[in-house]
Amino acid sequence: MNSRRDFLQKISLGIGATALTGLPEVASALPGFRADKQLRVALMGLGGYANIVARGMKECKTAKLVGIVTGTPSKIPEWKQKYGIEDKNVYNYENFHTIKDNPDIDLVYVITPNSLHHKHVLMVAAAKKHVICEKPVADNAKQAREMIAACEKAGVKFYIGYRLHFEPHTRELIRMREAGEFGKIMHVNNYAGFTIGDPTQWRLKKALAGGGAMMDVGVYSLNGARYCTGEEPIWVTAQESKTDPVKFKEVDETITFQLGFPSGIIANCGCTYNFNHAERLHVMGSKGWAEMNPSFGYGPIRGVTHKGPIDQPDVNHQAYQMDGVADAILNGKPDPNVTGQEGLKDMIVVDAVYESIRKGGAKIFINK
Amino acid sequence: MNSRRDFLQKISLGIGATALTGLPEVASALPGFRADKQLRVALMGLGGYANIVARGMKECKTAKLVGIVTGTPSKIPEWKQKYGIEDKNVYNYENFHTIKDNPDIDLVYVITPNSLHHKHVLMVAAAKKHVICEKPVADNAKQAREMIAACEKAGVKFYIGYRLHFEPHTRELIRMREAGEFGKIMHVNNYAGFTIGDPTQWRLKKALAGGGAMMDVGVYSLNGARYCTGEEPIWVTAQESKTDPVKFKEVDETITFQLGFPSGIIANCGCTYNFNHAERLHVMGSKGWAEMNPSFGYGPIRGVTHKGPIDQPDVNHQAYQMDGVADAILNGKPDPNVTGQEGLKDMIVVDAVYESIRKGGAKIFINK
Repeated sequence: MNSRRDFLQKISLGIGATALTGLPEVASALPGFRADKQLRVALMGLGGYANIVARGMKECKTAKLVGIVTGTPSKIPEWKQKYGIEDKNVYNYENFHTIKDNPDIDLVYVITPNSLHHKHVLMVAAAKKHVICEKPVADNAKQAREMIAACEKAGVKFYIGYRLHFEPHTRELIRMREAGEFGKIMHVNNYAGFTIGDPTQWRLKKALAGGGAMMDVGVYSLNGARYCTGEEPIWVTAQESKTDPVKFKEVDETITFQLGFPSGIIANCGCTYNFNHAERLHVMGSKGWAEMNPSFGYGPIRGVTHKGPIDQPDVNHQAYQMDGVADAILNGKPDPNVTGQEGLKDMIVVDAVYESIRKGGAKIFINK
Repeated sequence: MNSRRDFLQKISLGIGATALTGLPEVASALPGFRADKQLRVALMGLGGYANIVARGMKECKTAKLVGIVTGTPSKIPEWKQKYGIEDKNVYNYENFHTIKDNPDIDLVYVITPNSLHHKHVLMVAAAKKHVICEKPVADNAKQAREMIAACEKAGVKFYIGYRLHFEPHTRELIRMREAGEFGKIMHVNNYAGFTIGDPTQWRLKKALAGGGAMMDVGVYSLNGARYCTGEEPIWVTAQESKTDPVKFKEVDETITFQLGFPSGIIANCGCTYNFNHAERLHVMGSKGWAEMNPSFGYGPIRGVTHKGPIDQPDVNHQAYQMDGVADAILNGKPDPNVTGQEGLKDMIVVDAVYESIRKGGAKIFINK
């Protein structure tokens, strides 16, 4: 049991991921292993990513999928059957407020379209349940602040689905940076993107997505720039390109953006909905460097540094994430670096990206 | 002899470099091989890079170093001894105009500090000698236009020292792009830089260098973005960072810049005088990609594409460049893509980069 606890504690405390190699396997192989407690989770919104989360959570040791919230009754039977969801843990958006009286659900994972995150997180907070919300946290920083305040007032935890903060290759990169193995960070260069398919999907509708590539994959470039530097940007510039004004009538197709950090680092970032195999993270320091490619997908993540390939296990991102937040909640551990505040920091930059584009690339200074 | 001619013709015509593999070795190994004609070259300015060019030119088949122009008499004996320069081919800046009457010099290679290029190219044109000028062609586009006009009026060729256009790995990259092997180009990401040493050197003085990292290594990022896309930018944005305002009192230390191309590509570029191992070229297309690292140095250049490593010979960049321009001049071949016009295209962008920085990152539209 200690191995498992140590493992989760290390994740919570942000201790070097190298030490974690293989531990989940070791822990689960211990005779009679079981978690002392479980974090019982309901998923709100049963779209494509909810399916990925649900499948991933079958590998969880501490978190357990027990409930669903959906506006589409036809989805219910399959979910009940696939994941053993009991009727008493099935909600729709009309009766969701009654989840407050359900002692068998601890946390709601909001996986609805981006622009509904604000409303839904407020609903979860009102029901006094812990909440994890898929990124982007909201449409803008103002909404994110309201969500943080609501969760604080309700006394519930508020996390963002930044699964990479639990991913071993990414954690090793962060560990190396924190340990000074790259020396002084000098430049960061991140790009994220893919060719978006179905032109009718919600991600292409401003009212549901809040924005386009920037809101979706751009957040990976941006969050990556922050964990590559360990700093918060003080200015932002951004540029947009749109080659298909029909498909991308409502949202951005391709955006490049630059983040100026207090130490002088400029991160040169970008994102697109317009081509595949576009993702990559690259950090250059005075003593070393790292490059990850793929860097932001659901795995496997691959990285090389000046020392050689990053040798870490391939894990299920969603399972690791859910067990990570479960441990923090159940065992009173320090929060992993995926709190609402972390989401807010990204949204402040996203706001500045769109403002810079509106102002023709002008430098937007970030005032905390 | 045909092999050698074919080789040079292919360079001149921009025909695929894959066909060139090993040809220089083959050609020079031919019994009795010698060039029909020689292009006799004088170097103007005997600083660090002139030494590299002079050493490289020992490998030339068609170009030959025969003269020098220097304001430092103490350098003359060593150069005479090392490269067999005759007294009649030694000039200073006072008597340089008399080179007009020297039938034994065909071309002058201007390798003086950047801000002297304009004045010196005009001097060479006035002396009716062909000229190759180290990059950056000038301090700004206005000067470049004057230099082009002066050379046209004098009826002499005007080339820029874009040695990578003769470098086999780079040529293979360009060939692949032209052949459509990357599909539609979607994104370009180039960075170039190094830690600049001696704080008293001319490169840190505005009056001699014209600018800092952007003028020097930034031109590689920029020129690379143009040969990765085959397009000319229609807008430019740029950002600056300065961490050492003492060392970089007069010139830029680190600049990031973005180029918007007609097809919608945004190239995310940068340059620095502030850290080593900073160089890299990356082009992503709808069907493939290429990454070069090192990408801009004197060699060896290394590249990988979606097909695997770029398998090309490592050559002496300076020798290839000088033989390339020699062939165009001596044999009336089409000019390689290193003309004054090519330099002007870069300077137009450099002007826009500095203008964008002055205007806080504003988008500068380029009107031809």
